[in-house]
Amino acid sequence: MSISDLLNNSFVRWMDAETGPESDIAISSRVRLARNLRMIPFPHLMTPEYGKKCIREINDAREKNEDKVLGALNTISFDQISVIDRQILVEKHLISPGHAEKSEFFRGLMVNEDGSLAIMVNEEDHLRIQCFLPGLQIKEAYSLVQQLDDALEKRLDFAFDERQGYLTSCPTNVGTGMRASVMLHLPAIALSGQTRIIFQNINQLGMTVRGLYGEGTEVVGNLFQLSNQITMGQTEEDIISNLSTIAIQIIEQERLMRGKLNKEMQYQLEDRIGRSYGVLTNARTLSSNEALNLLSDVRLGVDMGIINSIKRFVLNELIVAIRPAHLQKKSGKEMDAFSRDIERAKAVKEKLL
Amino acid sequence: MSISDLLNNSFVRWMDAETGPESDIAISSRVRLARNLRMIPFPHLMTPEYGKKCIREINDAREKNEDKVLGALNTISFDQISVIDRQILVEKHLISPGHAEKSEFFRGLMVNEDGSLAIMVNEEDHLRIQCFLPGLQIKEAYSLVQQLDDALEKRLDFAFDERQGYLTSCPTNVGTGMRASVMLHLPAIALSGQTRIIFQNINQLGMTVRGLYGEGTEVVGNLFQLSNQITMGQTEEDIISNLSTIAIQIIEQERLMRGKLNKEMQYQLEDRIGRSYGVLTNARTLSSNEALNLLSDVRLGVDMGIINSIKRFVLNELIVAIRPAHLQKKSGKEMDAFSRDIERAKAVKEKLL
Repeated sequence: MSISDLLNNSFVRWMDAETGPESDIAISSRVRLARNLRMIPFPHLMTPEYGKKCIREINDAREKNEDKVLGALNTISFDQISVIDRQILVEKHLISPGHAEKSEFFRGLMVNEDGSLAIMVNEEDHLRIQCFLPGLQIKEAYSLVQQLDDALEKRLDFAFDERQGYLTSCPTNVGTGMRASVMLHLPAIALSGQTRIIFQNINQLGMTVRGLYGEGTEVVGNLFQLSNQITMGQTEEDIISNLSTIAIQIIEQERLMRGKLNKEMQYQLEDRIGRSYGVLTNARTLSSNEALNLLSDVRLGVDMGIINSIKRFVLNELIVAIRPAHLQKKSGKEMDAFSRDIERAKAVKEKLL
Repeated sequence: MSISDLLNNSFVRWMDAETGPESDIAISSRVRLARNLRMIPFPHLMTPEYGKKCIREINDAREKNEDKVLGALNTISFDQISVIDRQILVEKHLISPGHAEKSEFFRGLMVNEDGSLAIMVNEEDHLRIQCFLPGLQIKEAYSLVQQLDDALEKRLDFAFDERQGYLTSCPTNVGTGMRASVMLHLPAIALSGQTRIIFQNINQLGMTVRGLYGEGTEVVGNLFQLSNQITMGQTEEDIISNLSTIAIQIIEQERLMRGKLNKEMQYQLEDRIGRSYGVLTNARTLSSNEALNLLSDVRLGVDMGIINSIKRFVLNELIVAIRPAHLQKKSGKEMDAFSRDIERAKAVKEKLL
């Protein structure tokens, strides 16, 4: 996938539900490592001179290494692409909303063919090495970022302290520099009203839950992003293992609640799912939040065998395809919220019918 | 149409929208005349002996006359059919809810092949001669009941007073004994919030507005039954002419409001109609009132060319086919409200998809 493909199509690897374990509940897994180059100021203190030096070192590492994965990454510099294109990358979850805000030449993204491996360059840290996979694959994702990290470390001198671990721009990342997360679709837990209790327990285990677009974003469409809170005092392996265990427990709980719904409220469930499908495929305008909430019902219908005509990867694609930048990119023009709501309804119809 | 056809199929003449004038707004027209036989007590005071005499006289009049229309009427006696079957006749608008409540042998219905002409026997009066036509056809309906009335009057001695006119069981019917009504679908007037103002004016003109099933029933699905209030001091022709004029004025006002909606709120209108269609065709359970309200949106969509796949007569049939007795007759069993809601959703899908 070229950079242009990445910007013009909505599909990236994490959407490929057919290859993802537990993908009836786990949408995607992500692991990222924060890394910084020694002797270069952190991005928020970056000067043009250091910026050039930083980019040169990273490009050198990519070009001169012998690692196939690292060598295959394509590079986008944010002074070369539009605001809409940067938003496209945010909506695909490849970069953070904060990273998209500025267009300095030293900011950018390195990304492989299918969007499963990416490095944010000069976001909050010099490098944020990320892996995105479909379903519950935190261990697999960790193993892939580790490979990429190793390949980079052969050529780059990372800021590392024997006692503290990897040094990062924000103290909450110091240590492993790792954040691992899994996106879970939990409609039955949400319907049962147990969400709060479950997530209180999770916080006590050093984990946290966020919305679709990470820190500070609300939960919409019953999509909960479960991630580790702690980066010090635990090894990467422990964090990954804990997160996997908790994710599996939540997945089991969601399955239990789905079974209960199916048994005790079959008609009401089928009614709710049918109506949501009916509105999604017949509305003339749809807001983003309404669409995500209706898609949650339809996804539950697909997962429970109530709807058979829709593939899960289409629903994953839709999470992204209905976002503002994707809609505007597709239409080839800037649009106000009202026009986007109309285009969103069209896009949903196209994908679902 | 035999009596059995009438009870087993939902279609009757007034549903045939394609042949009804103004049928984008006027669903059906009805005219009825109340007539009583001299020397026989009114139905609420009826004895078995008088009951037999009454039925004999009416049957004689039907059999011995030379009028083709009168001769072609089939007869149902209410002691011969079930409660559900009597409810079927109520739901088709052929008899009043009150008439269906009792099963005495002298109560019944005489009805022609297509259900356009019918006589309720020993409802509140000995005879209630009725005509039902699709669209705005009050004059045509009056002309047909008049023919039937003339044919009956040749053989029967009606209670008539030179000064008061036809004598009836309830004083509000004395005089012409006539009630004429037209069922109007007024979603745009309802959306505009003008309903109350319009109907206040109508009351001052001696007309009244009721719900789908006449006196004491609420307005559902934006279906308003406009009828005359006064039966004395005006000729039949005046009443019919006034009602037609007022109906046409309301129809024009509804068209005006529809045009305005289309111009000023096109997307919202298409959105509302699309969603209602989506819910109707995908819900697993539907209450009667919800179905009628959603069908009102779909009908507006058909009338305004937003939905092209549905015929108006199907929507007319559905008004009746979704009612409790029709659902139970179709399923061949008694059902509670929850089961009926499920069967209703199925019936709607069958007719609309």
